Amino acid sequence: MTAAAGIKYLGRDDVLVMVLREGTTAAGVLTQSKCPSAPVDWTRNVLANGAARAVLVNAGNANAFTGKRGREAARLTAEAVAQAIGCGADEVLLASTGVIGEPLAAEPYAALVGDMVDSARPELWESAAQAIMTTDTFAKGAAATAKIDGVEVSINGIAKGSGMIAPDMATMLAFLATDAPVGASALREMLSNAAHGSFNAITVDGDTSTSDTLLVLASGEADVAPIETAADPRAADFKDALQRVTLDLAKLVVRDGEGASKFVEVEVVGAVSDSSARAIAKSIANSPLVKTAIAGEDANWGRVVMAIGKAGEPADRDLLAIWFGPHRVAKDGERDPEYSEDEASEYMKNQELMIRADIGLGGGQDRIWTCDLTHGYIDINADYRS
Amino acid sequence: MTAAAGIKYLGRDDVLVMVLREGTTAAGVLTQSKCPSAPVDWTRNVLANGAARAVLVNAGNANAFTGKRGREAARLTAEAVAQAIGCGADEVLLASTGVIGEPLAAEPYAALVGDMVDSARPELWESAAQAIMTTDTFAKGAAATAKIDGVEVSINGIAKGSGMIAPDMATMLAFLATDAPVGASALREMLSNAAHGSFNAITVDGDTSTSDTLLVLASGEADVAPIETAADPRAADFKDALQRVTLDLAKLVVRDGEGASKFVEVEVVGAVSDSSARAIAKSIANSPLVKTAIAGEDANWGRVVMAIGKAGEPADRDLLAIWFGPHRVAKDGERDPEYSEDEASEYMKNQELMIRADIGLGGGQDRIWTCDLTHGYIDINADYRS
Repeated sequence: MTAAAGIKYLGRDDVLVMVLREGTTAAGVLTQSKCPSAPVDWTRNVLANGAARAVLVNAGNANAFTGKRGREAARLTAEAVAQAIGCGADEVLLASTGVIGEPLAAEPYAALVGDMVDSARPELWESAAQAIMTTDTFAKGAAATAKIDGVEVSINGIAKGSGMIAPDMATMLAFLATDAPVGASALREMLSNAAHGSFNAITVDGDTSTSDTLLVLASGEADVAPIETAADPRAADFKDALQRVTLDLAKLVVRDGEGASKFVEVEVVGAVSDSSARAIAKSIANSPLVKTAIAGEDANWGRVVMAIGKAGEPADRDLLAIWFGPHRVAKDGERDPEYSEDEASEYMKNQELMIRADIGLGGGQDRIWTCDLTHGYIDINADYRS
Repeated sequence: MTAAAGIKYLGRDDVLVMVLREGTTAAGVLTQSKCPSAPVDWTRNVLANGAARAVLVNAGNANAFTGKRGREAARLTAEAVAQAIGCGADEVLLASTGVIGEPLAAEPYAALVGDMVDSARPELWESAAQAIMTTDTFAKGAAATAKIDGVEVSINGIAKGSGMIAPDMATMLAFLATDAPVGASALREMLSNAAHGSFNAITVDGDTSTSDTLLVLASGEADVAPIETAADPRAADFKDALQRVTLDLAKLVVRDGEGASKFVEVEVVGAVSDSSARAIAKSIANSPLVKTAIAGEDANWGRVVMAIGKAGEPADRDLLAIWFGPHRVAKDGERDPEYSEDEASEYMKNQELMIRADIGLGGGQDRIWTCDLTHGYIDINADYRS
């Protein structure tokens, strides 16, 4: 299922082929970048059909910003997989991650995929998770089960990503597979909803990749009548499980954020709307000054005020309240009279932190997850290509 | 003119009073933060009148997010200055920079300003520039002269700022003084135009302060008929000079960006509009991945593609061209066939860099200035308060 193409990481598996059962439906959420990679363009077209027989993933070269040759390389690799499986190239999903702007030679992949398809085994999820790593420090997987009409179905997922991570979407590849029978349009809607509260609710550095790809593949093997609309009440448990798996994976991506030493949940309540709450939460989570304060274990809530103020969303300074974990540090537009610097500083030593802001204007709320900004991030990114 | 209030930086001058001639007109550009500091609120009200007799600046405590007590402290300090000078408190402009959320004790200032007003001297610009520093590593000043009807007028300016710097506005205080006679409404319009191409065109970390304040004060001492509208053709040379001084000061702020080792000009041409060009330029200049690549002297133009793609502005991958200085690294959506990695890498060793992107869609263009993201930024900001 995975094999070394020897393109970027010598001696490490860096190609993954997932062979899918006939009849598998597929849905995806792809990068919002205006400069998407060739594989993203390819996959967007395949997903329009809602069916797939294989996924080919390579790590090390994103095949992004590679012009006509990049599109050609995407087509060639898809065709090689299609030939090995005996399906159409338009049933092969592609995803790539790695350096941008390097031409991708398709030939090594084409030569490999025949063997890989032959050796595909369902139990190889862990090596699959390893194959798609770039600057990741650990392989990321999650699973959940759900019941549809009393029949148990499962969802498995793997993900990669640790930098170039921002909501809509993270620099991130994630692949979920389920044996539940779900029609393509229902799958699309469920995935989109799940992504909103998971992969689109994380940020490491506010940067957005050209290659972000989240796919869900539903084989339909489970012996239960298919779900054809997301609104079907029989799907409730499945939707919950899908949300859990996507959120578990998304949180793993943040925990592995480049150089991260802290995992931070940012919750905003009392905004004028949920989308306003998200914009404020993103402003806090992406602020370099907030992130460096967290790295320094400094209960610097003034920088949280700054980040709320710069979000451009409705806010009234004199109604704001801010918490670090259980400690309310500010209320009514000034320092909480009962605020204890010692307690707040002690709290900041935790590896898992919660920052909460009440805007005081309405019922809008949202949560996102992020990490701190450390010397490690600079180390990794000032010298990634070489 | 400057004196130590002993609030934040023991033994260093940290209070500045500028005493202004009767009849001085004043205009300002203030932070767009929704959580502005008490001095910003105060100054906004004073500027509505267009006239001022004094400016009081303190560094070390921003008097931001300090609630009712903060507003009271602002009023008390303005009244103390007004009393020393013999003017109304509503003719006293205030500006503060420093820690957010610490209550400001007004009494030390009130006690100082009488002496300060007595010792005010016009030649003290340099100590004034020093007084307003926080994490700045050098004092920032600029000057220019212009002719109005053949009469020479001068513009002097000082600024502070090195972090929490983003367009609209930088975390930044800047004060310009001129002997040109310019009516308040003309001064407002000229300053707004000058700020667009200078202080609103720089970014260090994308963060926006609660306290940003840019003021221009026109004493009217020069012996020439006043300028009452910005469109007056007699003002052309003065407007140029104002643009030069604001741009010189703004660039000094970026050069002193926290931890900065490189000074970078980002130019975007070929966008669908000038404002679209600015949004793309900001996306490039604020990207942590672009900034760390610059710190690492890595000609990683793929990250520039990423930043263009995430800007959300119209862009067509296959029309993009990108330059690092004189070296075109990408064109027509892929690596330039004549690109030399060695030449580009050599170029990246310069302290002053130029990144240029041609979007290929229209005639919109803009330029902004930024710096790299280094270990120094983390050092400074992970432990600023203590």
